[in-house]
This record gives sequence, structure tokens and C-alpha cells, in this order.
Amino acid sequence: MALSVEKTSSGREYKVKDLSQADFGRLELDLAEVEMPGLMACRTEFGPSQPFKGARISGSLHMTIQTAVLIETLTALGAEVRWCSCNIFSTQDHAAAAIARDSAAVFAWKGETLEEYWWCTDGGDATLLIHEGVKAEEEFEKSGKVPDPESTDNPEFKIVLTIIRDGLKTDAHKYRKMKERLVGVSEETTTGVKRLYQMQESGTLLFPAINVNDSVTKSKFDNLYGCRHSLPDGLMRATDVMIAGKVAVVCGYGDVGKGCAAALKQAGARVIVTEIDPICALQALMEGIQILTLEDVVSEADIFVTTTGNKDIIMVDHMRKMKNNAIVCNIGHFDNEIDMNGLETYPGVKRITIKPQTDRWVFPETKTGIIVLAEGRLMNLGCATGHPSFVMSCSFTNQVIAQLELWNEKATGKYEKKVYVLPKHLDEKVAALHLGKLGARLTKLTKSQSDYISIPVEGPYKPAAYRY
Amino acid sequence: MALSVEKTSSGREYKVKDLSQADFGRLELDLAEVEMPGLMACRTEFGPSQPFKGARISGSLHMTIQTAVLIETLTALGAEVRWCSCNIFSTQDHAAAAIARDSAAVFAWKGETLEEYWWCTDGGDATLLIHEGVKAEEEFEKSGKVPDPESTDNPEFKIVLTIIRDGLKTDAHKYRKMKERLVGVSEETTTGVKRLYQMQESGTLLFPAINVNDSVTKSKFDNLYGCRHSLPDGLMRATDVMIAGKVAVVCGYGDVGKGCAAALKQAGARVIVTEIDPICALQALMEGIQILTLEDVVSEADIFVTTTGNKDIIMVDHMRKMKNNAIVCNIGHFDNEIDMNGLETYPGVKRITIKPQTDRWVFPETKTGIIVLAEGRLMNLGCATGHPSFVMSCSFTNQVIAQLELWNEKATGKYEKKVYVLPKHLDEKVAALHLGKLGARLTKLTKSQSDYISIPVEGPYKPAAYRY
Amino acid sequence: MALSVEKTSSGREYKVKDLSQADFGRLELDLAEVEMPGLMACRTEFGPSQPFKGARISGSLHMTIQTAVLIETLTALGAEVRWCSCNIFSTQDHAAAAIARDSAAVFAWKGETLEEYWWCTDGGDATLLIHEGVKAEEEFEKSGKVPDPESTDNPEFKIVLTIIRDGLKTDAHKYRKMKERLVGVSEETTTGVKRLYQMQESGTLLFPAINVNDSVTKSKFDNLYGCRHSLPDGLMRATDVMIAGKVAVVCGYGDVGKGCAAALKQAGARVIVTEIDPICALQALMEGIQILTLEDVVSEADIFVTTTGNKDIIMVDHMRKMKNNAIVCNIGHFDNEIDMNGLETYPGVKRITIKPQTDRWVFPETKTGIIVLAEGRLMNLGCATGHPSFVMSCSFTNQVIAQLELWNEKATGKYEKKVYVLPKHLDEKVAALHLGKLGARLTKLTKSQSDYISIPVEGPYKPAAYRY
Amino acid sequence: MALSVEKTSSGREYKVKDLSQADFGRLELDLAEVEMPGLMACRTEFGPSQPFKGARISGSLHMTIQTAVLIETLTALGAEVRWCSCNIFSTQDHAAAAIARDSAAVFAWKGETLEEYWWCTDGGDATLLIHEGVKAEEEFEKSGKVPDPESTDNPEFKIVLTIIRDGLKTDAHKYRKMKERLVGVSEETTTGVKRLYQMQESGTLLFPAINVNDSVTKSKFDNLYGCRHSLPDGLMRATDVMIAGKVAVVCGYGDVGKGCAAALKQAGARVIVTEIDPICALQALMEGIQILTLEDVVSEADIFVTTTGNKDIIMVDHMRKMKNNAIVCNIGHFDNEIDMNGLETYPGVKRITIKPQTDRWVFPETKTGIIVLAEGRLMNLGCATGHPSFVMSCSFTNQVIAQLELWNEKATGKYEKKVYVLPKHLDEKVAALHLGKLGARLTKLTKSQSDYISIPVEGPYKPAAYRY
Repeated sequence: MALSVEKTSSGREYKVKDLSQADFGRLELDLAEVEMPGLMACRTEFGPSQPFKGARISGSLHMTIQTAVLIETLTALGAEVRWCSCNIFSTQDHAAAAIARDSAAVFAWKGETLEEYWWCTDGGDATLLIHEGVKAEEEFEKSGKVPDPESTDNPEFKIVLTIIRDGLKTDAHKYRKMKERLVGVSEETTTGVKRLYQMQESGTLLFPAINVNDSVTKSKFDNLYGCRHSLPDGLMRATDVMIAGKVAVVCGYGDVGKGCAAALKQAGARVIVTEIDPICALQALMEGIQILTLEDVVSEADIFVTTTGNKDIIMVDHMRKMKNNAIVCNIGHFDNEIDMNGLETYPGVKRITIKPQTDRWVFPETKTGIIVLAEGRLMNLGCATGHPSFVMSCSFTNQVIAQLELWNEKATGKYEKKVYVLPKHLDEKVAALHLGKLGARLTKLTKSQSDYISIPVEGPYKPAAYRY
Repeated sequence: MALSVEKTSSGREYKVKDLSQADFGRLELDLAEVEMPGLMACRTEFGPSQPFKGARISGSLHMTIQTAVLIETLTALGAEVRWCSCNIFSTQDHAAAAIARDSAAVFAWKGETLEEYWWCTDGGDATLLIHEGVKAEEEFEKSGKVPDPESTDNPEFKIVLTIIRDGLKTDAHKYRKMKERLVGVSEETTTGVKRLYQMQESGTLLFPAINVNDSVTKSKFDNLYGCRHSLPDGLMRATDVMIAGKVAVVCGYGDVGKGCAAALKQAGARVIVTEIDPICALQALMEGIQILTLEDVVSEADIFVTTTGNKDIIMVDHMRKMKNNAIVCNIGHFDNEIDMNGLETYPGVKRITIKPQTDRWVFPETKTGIIVLAEGRLMNLGCATGHPSFVMSCSFTNQVIAQLELWNEKATGKYEKKVYVLPKHLDEKVAALHLGKLGARLTKLTKSQSDYISIPVEGPYKPAAYRY
Repeated sequence: MALSVEKTSSGREYKVKDLSQADFGRLELDLAEVEMPGLMACRTEFGPSQPFKGARISGSLHMTIQTAVLIETLTALGAEVRWCSCNIFSTQDHAAAAIARDSAAVFAWKGETLEEYWWCTDGGDATLLIHEGVKAEEEFEKSGKVPDPESTDNPEFKIVLTIIRDGLKTDAHKYRKMKERLVGVSEETTTGVKRLYQMQESGTLLFPAINVNDSVTKSKFDNLYGCRHSLPDGLMRATDVMIAGKVAVVCGYGDVGKGCAAALKQAGARVIVTEIDPICALQALMEGIQILTLEDVVSEADIFVTTTGNKDIIMVDHMRKMKNNAIVCNIGHFDNEIDMNGLETYPGVKRITIKPQTDRWVFPETKTGIIVLAEGRLMNLGCATGHPSFVMSCSFTNQVIAQLELWNEKATGKYEKKVYVLPKHLDEKVAALHLGKLGARLTKLTKSQSDYISIPVEGPYKPAAYRY
Repeated sequence: MALSVEKTSSGREYKVKDLSQADFGRLELDLAEVEMPGLMACRTEFGPSQPFKGARISGSLHMTIQTAVLIETLTALGAEVRWCSCNIFSTQDHAAAAIARDSAAVFAWKGETLEEYWWCTDGGDATLLIHEGVKAEEEFEKSGKVPDPESTDNPEFKIVLTIIRDGLKTDAHKYRKMKERLVGVSEETTTGVKRLYQMQESGTLLFPAINVNDSVTKSKFDNLYGCRHSLPDGLMRATDVMIAGKVAVVCGYGDVGKGCAAALKQAGARVIVTEIDPICALQALMEGIQILTLEDVVSEADIFVTTTGNKDIIMVDHMRKMKNNAIVCNIGHFDNEIDMNGLETYPGVKRITIKPQTDRWVFPETKTGIIVLAEGRLMNLGCATGHPSFVMSCSFTNQVIAQLELWNEKATGKYEKKVYVLPKHLDEKVAALHLGKLGARLTKLTKSQSDYISIPVEGPYKPAAYRY
């Protein structure tokens, strides 16, 4: 594989599909800005003082129109930004083009191979890569051992190990140098955050991390209302299927599952949820949603959506039993919820690509097929355009605030090598920045009410553990 | 304008965008067939006897994947079919290609000019054209007068008159010959049906017509549930806007408006309806929807949808007062609900095309813009793919049944030059054909129950005036 | 049975439970008037001209607070009114007391026996009684034959025949004299209307009838939104059961069934519908509601509601198979949807009255019980207070308008011995009278719009067959 | 005031309205047991070992049918129980009678005066009383000072001080002796919990406390789904008002407010929320609910509900501006959300009691009135029967588990004088106990999935801070 970096006339590096889509990207960026009041308020509040002057920020996050507004908010605050996507299908090429041309170093396109994906990522500071890289360099220094890509079955991790192994030959301090420079990371996916906590617990976390995912204005908005919007959007763009009247199975009833189930129910489907957690199951029941196991319904449902964050949810053995043209898709962050490997290697199975990211897989015994979206990866980004701008503005305003915290406090020792969440008053601030656009008018506490409930007039209004 | 007809190797005529998309169209046709049990049941029930043997059927209806399944149902029953679209933006080019290559004479592509549209239509038997043509020929025979395209302000009707006028020169009996041959027409749009009843009342209707629109399985399904599906689909594909939290105005609360309001409400918008009819208004109120006039809300709403079937609903003077990036679109059959002419001719207005069928219009005074979808035409077909297959299967099964009725009874005199609706038992049959796919199990009347309520065990189950 | 009529100080006859509840009734009447703008508008518009001067109006309709406002609207327009209920459990005793004391001759109380019920009715002009009475008198005159109560199994019809038979002894022209005096009848129940059409068809209808039920502002409001309100109200008052999480079966998906299903779904139940009509079934499916037969679900559901207007829907054999404490109730007009006779005569069954209108029936084999509401009669009136005032104002404004029509046209011959529906413009007027209370602002057609769609600016806005 | 304690034949003390209602109470208790699987499972699991042998449990909680099942669960586990209500209107007298006769010492009736309420409470160990009592006794011992009831404006606290002051004369160690005996308290109201945390912070908490309110299976079920059920129930029983079409204002969008808003919206009202917290406000907006201030809507809304837990939400000055017959009610725990004092002392205001707990207050200037429910106290318990059994089973199973914890660990020092929440696995257990009744089938983690996400197969499934 030989990929070459390109440069803008001003010398900034990039690699995108087609720079000529930059004008189209800019038009959509202009629209998105109107829908992202939190980010625009950050530009207004912080832009003049250029707080990110001297900061280099590397991002690994779906390279969409919304992300482009985030990137230009960071640059408007003085940062120098490099960006890659975190999913091979999630880049919007016109967004990447506009940013590459106008604002930041972008390495992302829709439909990367896994090799290309990690090539894009390597130039950046992706958390996993840096941790694995440092570990390998230290092992190499100690024992001369290099990582063995054959030691893993996971095709993606194989590539990671290859990159690190090959890197050791040219610079055995590369990742450690990166680590030294690194002030901290802000992480917004449920799965990424989980990994950070595991590193914190095992004492292997190399730098401070802010868990943006667990800001209320992230997890209870992006995950819930974002998916409520983008699940049906992805289904419709990929298959044009009528949702009303269908039986839809949602695996998992966390925030993402709740958003998906709500969307399907409202569109007229009969929704059935599978859950391992009795509390989430009872919540679904209270909304009139049946709780069954996948085995109970696999042969009568029309639409299957995985949202669990776990692996091995829908196996090829399930898929074989499904109705003809049952739709199978995943909206969880990683692509191992659906057993794509089992499907691809099923003897005699036939893949018919209807259009990109929409495949029909026909089983030889029955001649019936199932329709798999985005090859089992994030269907809302693979088949549609992901979450809409307004809800991403909430998530991304948290990102900007988190990055400002890490950068501003880089020398104060406020943040150790641990995982932090943003304090409640910043979470409330993010929400407040989004109310005006929707015409809302908040009530203000009187002094006497404030005294009575022992809550400051200006907030924070809830204890940390409040569930919303 | 010089458009030339093309021919398949078998000699069938067509004019489509790109015949090479036929394979893609066929793949989507295969999927659609599974979702259209009513049409497939017609093929099974009637195909063997070839009832349409000798019949030539001309269709003027959005040339989509769903329509393609209808066309191939008609050909499977023995008909020779010619098709054009009924909207310049509504053709799906891959559907047109598949049909042109495999099944019928198609003249349709997405993005026709008005001249091209009527050129496509003229070869067929469009109801309006034939009525105007016959009128003109008779007048010409009587008085030698030819129609004057300058006698109308309507740009589309101008073209119709031009076509007829020019036709008189070459064959002054063309439309009368067409009329003689014509056995009858089945019509499925609310607006088209209205026009037929007006002709019936004025005694100018030239042939029998079956009003398919007022089959319950059409108007209460396609109009309502179809729009509930395709309105948000169109909004999302065109603008990616987050619907939740927005203020959405739906003009009109008929079946289409009910579907649109339900979709927007379920997606988390605050919906306001405008209505002239107090009964429909009271229905909206019972669902928690506010009834106001457009003037009351024009400057605070984010999304405007017209569904009235009337003209002059949103005028340029309204549009000038809207918020920046307010979205304005129409899902009613005709394109005169939104004052596009007023907008286009507004002094100093600037049109920025974001992408096809999504334009931002900027007013010179305020520099704020509004986003107009599909140039004011049917946004669900212009910006998305229209109604999904399952609900169109209901509508189109009515069409097949209506065409069968007209053809089978062509010599019996059963149908006079009037407008008819299908009898209740056929309407119920259409519904019944769609239950199995959704796993439904109907209850059967016992003999004693049937006697008690004086309703036959096999139906029809409701009086003709029942409202559902 | 010896029931004696009582008299007010002014000499008006009545028979109610407890006249001392009149003050309480008056307080609730005052509240109800504010919620019944249609009736109050009738008083304002017609009161001054006293159009019912000289008219005697007999009503047979649930004697509730809402009916009381109707009665006082009739008396405010000059009528002399006599009233009985049309259900043994549906009278609100304080409403009856207030009317008896202040306005009209009332014969009704909550918990009448069937004998008492028909004693109350006999003094009035109930449609069934008068038709049967006239038939019997004519037969008696011709052949000397008297009706034989033993000729029927129906316990209620037995009483009707007894009353008629006994009446023949004292006055063999009683019902015929009634009939002569009778100007016409307005009927508002689905079942009552059905009976009228059957009489019309068989040529036995003795006077003009206006079918108020099929006014849109009746059937699509009272039946639908009324039941959506009063079904959960009745369930809660009778059983305090949590609806969320339960499996609820609604038998029938007409207007009443649609209202019930909506209410249960919104309260968090999983709703399953049984239907004979494929069109209604398909409507339910489009709302995500499963269609099964009663047999499919009888042993897993928690709540059963009958809404069919048919008989023999839930039989004792179904009830035996139900879960312990399953709730069984009927909201259809007649009490033969649930097999109460089968239940009462089931060998060894034990009835435990929890409170009035809430009984637990325990089967001997299983020792499990089911809970039957209102003895199988209208549960919303038996266990709660029926439909709320606002929606009844729509229905009853239709009644007032219908009675005015019949009375004003009594000498003109406009109405023959047939069944009529009110014209569309009156239906629209009823709706319009209810908009102001809800703060609605209607849009007005412009002249040019009116011309374009050929609809008068002031309506009617829809063709007669429009389904809403 | 002279209230005398009564005794059962077995010598157990009580004071209830009418012991003869015990049979009726028992019938409803039997029904409730079927709906409370969590409590019944506790009886099965723990009953045989009699863990509460020797424990005396005092409860201060609405004395309803559901509470009765809780009480009998505690006695089934060996406890000796004494109970009073925590609201003057919330007792169901038949429940109190059944318990008094059969199971425990009850001091509660519907419609207590404040004096009676505190008389009932004093014999028990109400948290507030004991803390104030101990404080007063210590102050008295030190300085001889007795509490002065005139030192407070709060009429209720005046009574508390009077009781304590009077008690000092007869036994100046009463409350300290109580405190010594007291093993701990479990608290389930949002407001009560808040007070406990304040005492913990100020170091004045006298014994361990378990915060049951913040169990997910309490606050996200009882508060949310309980209110979604009981708010419309209370509105309907008190006023019979049609909710559809009305404008309803919900003050506060916490769990209780979310439940209320959902109920009103589903019933067809147009809901407007007032909020101080921008996050909760943004949640409401995402559901299509408008956020305004009370001042914005006070004169156009029909129904007002307070849910804030704060004071002075609806003041008499608001009430004066409301529409005629606007309904004003509170579903928050305390009765100071609505300015009842301001209303009662408004010059010339007139109170008309429609029926118990439903009053119309008429203002002298306008002659228009508003309808206040339950005198501003908890309307769902004052006007209806509170939350239904099933959801209370979740809350009360937490109570039983908490009490078991406190009692079992009384000698181990596990619990200090602090506020604790139950561990996640007990919360999940409570949920699990309620799934079977609703027919749910949970999915089980495989070993490999469990390893992948580092979550035990048997749970707990979520981190402590998870928000559900």
C-alpha cells in the first residue's frame, strides 16, 4: 500500500476523496453553523482571546459536516488541527474537502480500507495506537521483542500491530515522544470511555482524559435523540422500506436503544427489545414494549438493530433463520455486534450489492436473503449522514470545553492520569447555549426559593448523581 | 426542442436518462416486490388468464420503483403499457431504465423541463390533454379557431395549448381518435379526482372514470401513512435538519396533513396546523396540536409544509418574514401552494443551490435566507423516493382492480361517462391481501353474529359512508 | 313491582334516587356549562325566540351531568322535557336530582333493575317500545292476539313484551296515540341508528329520524376521543390497576376501538386488537398494533375490552382460560358482547363484589378469578362518569340542531318516514362552536382560492363522503 | 384536642375512621397482592427465616392499599409495625381499617387536621420530629429554654414545636430515648432525602439512613410512571374535565414532571413546561414541549400542575389572572408549591366546595373562579388513590430490602450516621422481581461477552453513575 499525502497551496497536508467538493461542503457548513448554536457561542466567547494558540489538536472522529463545524471552532480559538475519521464509512467527502482546503489537515474519505484507515490514524494521536505503541516500544527496549500481528484474530488489531512493528524499525521512540507531548484526551463514545476507565483501573492510562460521553448533554441527547433521528434516516435511505406495520427488534435498551425503539415505534412498527439488564427491560415494558430473547423472534421480525456495545449479538445462525429480506443493521460504535465474519464465510452464501452499504446476502439452502446495512458498521453514518447538527452541537460544545480545560490546566496539575467528567455547571451551560435557538424561556429562581432548596440561583441545579 | 425517441433491441420505444441503470433498478424492483403483496397476489390470481390481452394501458404517474412493480403487474396480466411521469422531479431513473429495457415503453427522467414533460405526456393519453385536445379539435372544425397559448398566464397550460395547436396542423382528429379508443381511466390523486367530478357535473367527461383515490385503502393509507413516512424522509435527505425541538407548521389537516403532522410530532417537533375547515381543526386540537393562522406563526416557525390541494398558501410576503434558514416545502400534488413565481421574481432575491432540489433563497433586505425544497413541487418525490412500497401496493392494487373492471366491462355498458368508486368488497379485498405480510390473523364472524348484525360473514363489513 | 311517581312543589313528576343531591348536581352543572360551548351557544342563539314552545321532548339517554346541560338547553329553548336513562348503571344521581328539582321530569337512578328501567322508559317514547307497541296493538286489533313474553329468551325483551301485553288491557291505542303525536326522533348511538336503518329498509319506520351518530362531530369525536378519555378513567376508578406494562386486548377497531386502543397504548400497555374487517385491521397494523384472534391471546392478556357492537365476543369459555385477575369489560352500547349469562350460570362459579360494578368471578377448577366491570355493561358509565363534557357538547349540539330541524319542519313535509343525516354545513357549524374555547384561530379562504377549488368561502368544505 | 387510642380485641392500638371497612380493604388488598410481585417475592424468600423478629418498625407514609401490602410484608417477615400517614388527605380508610384489624397499629384517616396528623405521628418515630425533639431536649437540659411555637410562621412547624414543648414537661428524655433505640431509617421521597443529606452535611444526622428514593427502581419508576398514571386519574376523578385540546402547564420537568407532561400530552393536551434547569428544559424541547415562564401563559392555560419540590411556584397573583375554571393542582410532596395561604386570605375571595378535595375559588373582581384540587396537597392521593400497585411494588421492595439491611447490620457498624443508597445489584434485583408478571424474557450474557465488556454474567450491569 502506498498512500501519498497531498498539500494545499499553503502547505497544509491532507488526503481526501475529492477537493473539488469543497464548495459544496462549505454550503452545507454554512447551514450547519445556524443549527449549532453551542459551537458558535464558543467562537464568540473564546475566539477573541485565542486560548488554543500554540495547541495542536488531533481528532479521530467521524469526518462529517458537524465535525467540520467543530474543527473550525477549534481553529477559530487558535488551534492547529489534524483530523482523521473513526470509521471507514462515516466520512462525508464534501465536508472533508472543505476542511482540507480551508482549515485543517484532514485524512479521511468514505469507504477506506482498514489499511487506509490506520494509515490515516497513525499520523494522529489515536488513544489506542499510542497506548499500544508505547507498550511495544518499552517491551522492545527491554527484550528486543516486536509485536506479532499473527498473535490476534482481530483483523483490525492485526493492522495496528503491523503499523507499530514496522514503526519500531524507523523510530523506536515515536509513540513515547507523542505521549510526552500529549496534554490529554477528550473522549465521547460509550465504548471509548469504557476502555479509558479500564486503563485507569489497571494503572496504564498515560495522560489525563475527560469523559465527554457522560456529560448529560452528550449521552442523554446525542445517543438518545441523535439515534431517534438517524436510525430511520439510515433505514429509509438504504432500503426505502415502510417501517409502519413491521416487527422491529432492538437489541439493547440503553440510551441508543431507547432512541432507536422510540423512532421505530413512532413510525408505526411493533417493537420488541432484547436486554440483559432487568432495569432497562422494565423501562421498556413501561413503554409498552415487549421484552423477548432474539431466539424468540428471529424468524418473525422484519428489522433488527443492534445497540449494545457488546459483541456477538446477531450471529450467522440467527441470520439463517430470518425472513426473506429481513433487514439487519448496527448502530453501536463497533462493528462486532453482527457476526459479519460468520456471514461472509458461510458456505455458499451469495452477496448481492444493491447499492453501496446495502447488501443482500442469500443463503444457499433457502434461497432467501437478508439485507445487511453498512457491512455491519454504524448504519446511520454509513447509510445516511449521521446525527443532525443541532444535537451534535451539544456533544461538540462539550468537546470544546473539555479541550479548553485540558489545555488551560496543562501546567497546573489539576488533571492527573485519570478519567474526569465535566462539572455539572459546564454541562448546564452547554444546554443553556442551545435553548435560544428553540425559543425557550427559562424560569429564574427567586432568592427565597434558592434558599429554601439550597440551590444557587445560577445553578448547578442538580446533584452529580441525578439521572435526568 | 428536438427530443428523439429511442428503441430497445425488440423495437419498444422509450426515452429515459440512462439505460445502463437498468440492473440497479432491477435489484430494487426485486426488493420492492417482496413489499408489495397486493400486486404480487394480482399476478398470481389473474396472470394465468391474461385478462389484459389486447389492452393498451397508458400511465401518467410518478415513474418510481413502486410504479415499476405496478407496470410489470399490468404486463404480467397481458397489457401493453406506455408510461410517463406526472411530475418533473419524481422519476427514479433506475426504475425507468429497468422498465424501458424489460417491460414497457417509458418516457420519463428526473429533472424534465416543462416542455419535455408534456412531450413525454403527449404520446400517452393524459386525461387533461385529451379533453382539451378534443375540445380544440371540435372548435377548429366548427370555427377554424386554434387555441392561443397566450390566452393563459399558467406556464404549464401554455405548453398544453401549444402542443394542441401544433397538433391540429398535422392531424385534426388525433385526440378524437384517442378518445374513441379509450375505454376509461382510473385516477388516484385527490386533485385529479376533483377535476373528474367537475367534468362529470358539467357534462364534459368523455369516458368512464374510476376514482381510486377514494378507496379507503388508498386515501386513508397512501395519503396518511405514506406521507407520515416520506415527509421526514424528504426533510432529512434534503437538509439533514434535526426535527426535534423545532416549530413546524403544517398547512392543511386532511389525510396528507394528518400524516405530516403525526410524523413531525413524533420526531419531536412542536406542530402548529393551519386550517379552513372547523372539523379538521377540531381533530387537530384533540391531538394536542395548536390551530393558528400562517400570519400568527410565520416569523417563529422553523419548518413549513403545505398539504392543502389549494393554491397561494405560502406567498413570497410570508417567506420574507421567516427566520433565517426556515425550510419551506410542499407535499400536495400541485406546485402552486408555494408562491414560487413571487419568490423567483422578488427584486434582488438570490438563489443558492445547495444541492439538486435544495435551494437557499436570500432576501436582499435582511440577508437571511429560506430553504425551499424541490422548487415547491412534491418534496417527498423530489428530495427522497416517495412513498414506500408497502403502502403503494395498496394504492396500486386498487389501480389494477379498477383497470380490470373498466376493461372487462368495456362492452357491457356497466360504466357510463361518469366517475365511479370501487365497491366496498373490493376495497376490503385490497386490505386483506396486505395482512399476511404483517403477520395479522383476522377474526371470523360466526353465523349467529352475522345474523345479529346483518352483515355477511365474508363482508362487506361497513356501510358505504363509513369513515374509518 | 310498585313504583310510585313523585312530584315537585310545582307539580312536575319525577322519580330519582335522592332529591337532596340537587345542590351538588347544580354545582357540577355549573362547571359543565363552561366546558360545553356548543350547547351554551345554542341557548344564546335560539333562546330568545323560544323555538320549542309547545314541544314536548322525551329523552332516553344516560342521565349524566352532560345530559343535564342538554336538557336545560332544550328547556331554555321552550321545550317541556321528560327524561329516562338508557342504561341501568349510567345515571348520575346528583344530575338527575338537579334536573328533577329545577327543569324537567326525570325518571332515572343508578342501579335500576331491568323492570324499573322499562317502567321509567314506558312513560316516555322510546323508539323500540313504540314500534313494538304499535305492532302489537295492530295485531291485537286484527287477531286478538297479545304478545307472549315467553316467546323470547332475551330477558329484556321479555319485559318489553310484558309491558305491552299488560298495556293492551287498559288502552289498546296507547302506542298508536303516541305515534300520532310524535314528530320525529334523533338518535345518537351506532347501534340505535343501525336499527333505524333496518326499519327504514323494511318499511316499518313510523316517523322521521335524524341519525346524529353519523355527524362527523359525533362519531369521530364522541366515539373516538370520548372513549380515549373514559376507558382509562373507568379502569382506574374500578380497579386502580397499572395499565403500563400490561397486555391489553381491544375487540374491534372502529371509532370506539380506536379510542380505546390509543388510550391503552399511550398509558404504556402493549395492545392487541381483534378484528373481522381487513381495512380496520390494516389501520391498526399501521399504528404498530398486533392483530390476532381472541383465542391466540386469551391466556396471556391482562385487560380485555369489547367495542364491537356485536354479540358473543367474550364467552365464558374464554374467561375460564384467562390469567388470574384479568380484567374484562365492555364499552360498546349493548351488554351482550360479554357472555354474562354463561358466566353467571357456570357451575360452581363464585362472585365476589369488590365494590359496586367491580366483581371478581372465581372459577371452581382453577380457583383463579377474573374481574368483570359494570356487569358487562358500559364500563365508562358504570364505573366512571362517562365521556367528558367538552366532547359531549359536540354530540349534544347535534341533538339540539336535529330536534330543531324536526320540530321546525314538522308541517312542511321536508322529512318523510326515513333516516336522515344532518347536512355538512351544520356539522361544520357544530365544530366551529367548539374552537374558541380551545383558543383556535381558523384560516379563511380568499375569494380566488375559493374559486380555484370550487368551495364556498363559508363552506361546506368537504364532499359528503369525505372520511376525515 | 382529645384523641383517644382504640384497641383491637388482641390489644393492638389503632385509630382509624371506620373499622367496619376492613372487609372491603381486605378485598382490595387481595387484588393488590397480585399486582405487587416484588413484595410477594420478599415474603416467599425471607418469610420463613423471620429476619425482623424483634424489630419494631414505624412507618410514616401514605396509608394506602399498596402501603398495606408493604406493612403485611414487614409483619410476614416478623416485624412489629406501627404506621401513620404522611399527608392529611392520603389515607384510604378501608386500607387503614384492614391493617388495624389484622396486622399492625395504624393511626391514620383521610381528612385529618394538622393537629390530628401530628398526634398520629408523635407516637411513631418521624424523622423530623425526632431530630427536632432531641435538639430541644438538649437545649432544655443546657439552658432550660423550651421551643417557642410562635417563633415560626409555618403553621405545621408551629404544631411540631408545641408537641415538643409540651412533651418536655412530662419526659425530657423522650426523643433521646427514641433515638437510642433507633437502628436507622429508610426514606423514599425526593424531599425527605434532600433533608437527610442536609443533616449529613451539617453533621446533625442522628442515625444511619438509606436513601431509597435514588434507587433507579424507585425514582425512575414510581416518580415517572406512577405520576403518568395518577395525575390524569386525579384530574378525572376530581373534575371529569376533558384533557384533550386543553393547554396544560407543568411546572418542573424532573421525574415527576416528565411523568405528568407525558400523561397530559398523550391525553391530547398541548403541554407547556416551566423550568429553571437548562438541561431538563432541553429534554422537554426534544419531546416537542414548549418551555415558557408561568407569566407567559398564566392567562391562556387550562390546567396547571406543580411538580418542583420548591415553594412559591403558583402565587395568588398568578391565580387571579387565570381563565375561568382553570384547574390548579400540585403533585409534589409538600403543599407549599401553591400559595394556598395567599388564596385563602385574598380579600373577598369565595370558596365553593364542589365535593371533598375539589374547591372552586371565586375572585371578587372578576367573578371568575379557579378550581383547586386537594387544597394544594398531593392531588393524586387527595383526589384519587395514588400510584398503582405495580409501580409501588418496585418502591416498596426497595423499602423492605433497605430495612433488612439496616436491621441485619445493626450491630456490625456497616452503616454510620450517613445517608446510603442501595447497591446496584439490589436495585437490579428489584427490577428482576417485576419482569415475570409482565411476561418478559431476559437475555443472558455469554461468558465470552461477559469477558469482552468486563461485566459479570449475573450483573451488576451498569456503573453506579449510569442514568438510565
